[in-house]
Amino acid sequence: MARQRIAVIGGVASGPAAAAQAHRADPEADVVLFEQGPHISYGACEMPYFVAGEIERAETLVMLSPEQFEKTRGGKVKVGHRVIGLDPARNRLTVENLDSGGVSTHRFDKFILALGARPKMPDIDEMDAVNVFAMRTLEDAVGIKAYLADYDVKHVVVLGGGYVGVEMAEAIRARQIRVTILEPGPGLLHTYLDSDLRPLVDAVVQRHGVIVRHERAIALEHHPGGTVVSTDRGERIGCQMVLVTMGTVPNTELATQARIRSGLTGALAVDDQMRTNLPNVWACGDCVEVERIIDHKKIYLPLAPAAFRTARVAGQNAGRRGRGIPARFPGVTGASAVKVFELEVATVGLKLDEATAAGFDAFATIVRHWSRVSFYPGARPLHVRLIAERRRGRLLGAELVGEEGAALRADVLVPLIREGATVHALRDLDLIYTPPFAPALDPLIVAAAKAVKWVKA
Amino acid sequence: MARQRIAVIGGVASGPAAAAQAHRADPEADVVLFEQGPHISYGACEMPYFVAGEIERAETLVMLSPEQFEKTRGGKVKVGHRVIGLDPARNRLTVENLDSGGVSTHRFDKFILALGARPKMPDIDEMDAVNVFAMRTLEDAVGIKAYLADYDVKHVVVLGGGYVGVEMAEAIRARQIRVTILEPGPGLLHTYLDSDLRPLVDAVVQRHGVIVRHERAIALEHHPGGTVVSTDRGERIGCQMVLVTMGTVPNTELATQARIRSGLTGALAVDDQMRTNLPNVWACGDCVEVERIIDHKKIYLPLAPAAFRTARVAGQNAGRRGRGIPARFPGVTGASAVKVFELEVATVGLKLDEATAAGFDAFATIVRHWSRVSFYPGARPLHVRLIAERRRGRLLGAELVGEEGAALRADVLVPLIREGATVHALRDLDLIYTPPFAPALDPLIVAAAKAVKWVKA
Repeated sequence: MARQRIAVIGGVASGPAAAAQAHRADPEADVVLFEQGPHISYGACEMPYFVAGEIERAETLVMLSPEQFEKTRGGKVKVGHRVIGLDPARNRLTVENLDSGGVSTHRFDKFILALGARPKMPDIDEMDAVNVFAMRTLEDAVGIKAYLADYDVKHVVVLGGGYVGVEMAEAIRARQIRVTILEPGPGLLHTYLDSDLRPLVDAVVQRHGVIVRHERAIALEHHPGGTVVSTDRGERIGCQMVLVTMGTVPNTELATQARIRSGLTGALAVDDQMRTNLPNVWACGDCVEVERIIDHKKIYLPLAPAAFRTARVAGQNAGRRGRGIPARFPGVTGASAVKVFELEVATVGLKLDEATAAGFDAFATIVRHWSRVSFYPGARPLHVRLIAERRRGRLLGAELVGEEGAALRADVLVPLIREGATVHALRDLDLIYTPPFAPALDPLIVAAAKAVKWVKA
Repeated sequence: MARQRIAVIGGVASGPAAAAQAHRADPEADVVLFEQGPHISYGACEMPYFVAGEIERAETLVMLSPEQFEKTRGGKVKVGHRVIGLDPARNRLTVENLDSGGVSTHRFDKFILALGARPKMPDIDEMDAVNVFAMRTLEDAVGIKAYLADYDVKHVVVLGGGYVGVEMAEAIRARQIRVTILEPGPGLLHTYLDSDLRPLVDAVVQRHGVIVRHERAIALEHHPGGTVVSTDRGERIGCQMVLVTMGTVPNTELATQARIRSGLTGALAVDDQMRTNLPNVWACGDCVEVERIIDHKKIYLPLAPAAFRTARVAGQNAGRRGRGIPARFPGVTGASAVKVFELEVATVGLKLDEATAAGFDAFATIVRHWSRVSFYPGARPLHVRLIAERRRGRLLGAELVGEEGAALRADVLVPLIREGATVHALRDLDLIYTPPFAPALDPLIVAAAKAVKWVKA
């Protein structure tokens, strides 16, 4: 069989991972990675800390330069190349060189789509001003930081109180600049946390001087001295910078034009081998939907852990030429965490309303316990909310909020949720008890012991 | 059926837990808890931090006074009462009141033995001097702290480099006093860590000025100015205090006299309902052996998590009068952790030599990764050593050493080891990635990915 040619489209995070894996699966293959921006392989999750100044240089966020990638991972890298046409049936890819403006068409046997996502933008005018930024690419982050350094920014308005909005508010506060978050939904992090725990986040955000308004931006007016944001409640808020952190939308246009199907979430539909509906096209990363292991529902979860993993599966299956056993993506539990000033906020699995919507007869319980033995120096309160099935006690999800040990404790629940374990099993785990690290009964155990009482015998 | 009478013998940790659970299972029962010392229900694990001064008052370590216990948990508490005779066949208990010296015999239907353990002592003379301390009861800790406060102690010699010895060395150093540990075995924490990781512990202990000698104490000579410890290598070490931390021995004498059987470990043999060989006697805590879930071997693991859990099972089954389903103890994974100055040292499951001894064709791999994203402020190296089965890749154990996030990451492995999961399953977990809490690929994932390569296809 002739040397196979594999095109990988998109170079931020999942593209390079898929390309590296494809090359590993078939070292003879010609693997070419196309990225329209100047950088590949960088950490988007680190960008708020770069803006805050905790990470100084943008270069630090770039894991591998194109040259380093080619040298260590194999394959070719084409940065500054935008893919403008995809025709898998005829094995063709049309590419625009953004430097020269030249357009060329290339033949490939297989295609891996790592198209990523773009920021969801509000449906208002005047969004293209120089002081309005979204938060997606490394250039966005560099632009924000440069603008803050070069201009006298006294007040930043953040549109959207999800986890990126909250991280960016903290980053801006770290630079001693006033911040207002506009979040029209039920509260900060409302897709993350139940209302029982959100007051903890509100309190810490307020304590650090972040203003939160439950309003929606409906218009921007730009003046020489800055911008006025008008809201649906008639407020007019003056500022010098607007940040858009309203979530992300999968990039599917190129795929749709090539008759590649999307799922109900709007992201590309793939099976657990990361195959699309076309036989020579795989997809991965923030442009695909993934299976939530708990209820087998397809969800859109544009987070790095799923992106890396789907990329590895796509790359391996595209590369392997039918030999061996196909790689499979085992689905997600949705474990994730966000730092909100001194708080760790973590979530895993289903929220209560998601569990109910998925058909589970579910309940939730909350405990407040301690990150360490309560009287050991440094011990901090930790709130644990468990969501479980009423009849058998199956653990469906959890939310954890505290100043210490929330994120890693959410990790403890990942294997349990994945295997369908009960709150009884969690209660019976012999988790560590060492005064500086964990109390006699870990907060997870205390929460499980309470939940067990709610399970119908 | 008449009101049942249940005696619980031993009041430190598992006794009160068992008594409370028995009372909950049968609120009509007469539950009486006997403890020879003045306190019940205290945290032995916190004692080193009390000696160090990080926890100021001894009272803080006592969870419940006898009065509080009686009020909140039910049952009667008899402190200062030593049980000197046990005759389950005739339902009798003989008790000495240590205050009055009076001896009395009582009738009980059921007995729960929470006899605890005592320090293993070296086979040398002169161990009963006032400046020689073991570390077991709250009175020991109070005595050590008082001696350090009242006398001019310049140098302390610690006999034994296990986790209590290392914790006590740190506690003594916190008081600016010179410390020498005598550990004749292969190294500090050698029952805890493989030789590949022990140098990390040696380095931090040395950096904090603790002297470690691989020698055995063979004699003590007491002089007006202090004590000289002679070693098997001919050293003579002058000091003002000797601490014995050579491990613990289960208290089984009372049980043995009553024809209750011990297992191969020397601790009392119980089934998973915490029944001894006598029909009306249960046992729990540091006097029993427990089943290691990985290989079903009975081991002696005198640690608080197992003590609490075996106590709950013993209490419930003694109290329940044959109604309902018996409680069962699900065995241990042996997860535990120790703070060694700025290091977290954690272990779970089998060590490589234990795995080999248990008949597994096992291997071990080590990775050094980061507790957070490597360039995020505060990131610290974390070493993870995984022990796994060569043929199927079953995860058998792990050791973790680092300045951050070792203990809670060992907890993540507890459910995996318990269910017999493979290193492939660990590699595929979607653990959290958030720069301040965990890197893109968690150290556990990196370790698992390396281990997967060692598994025979």
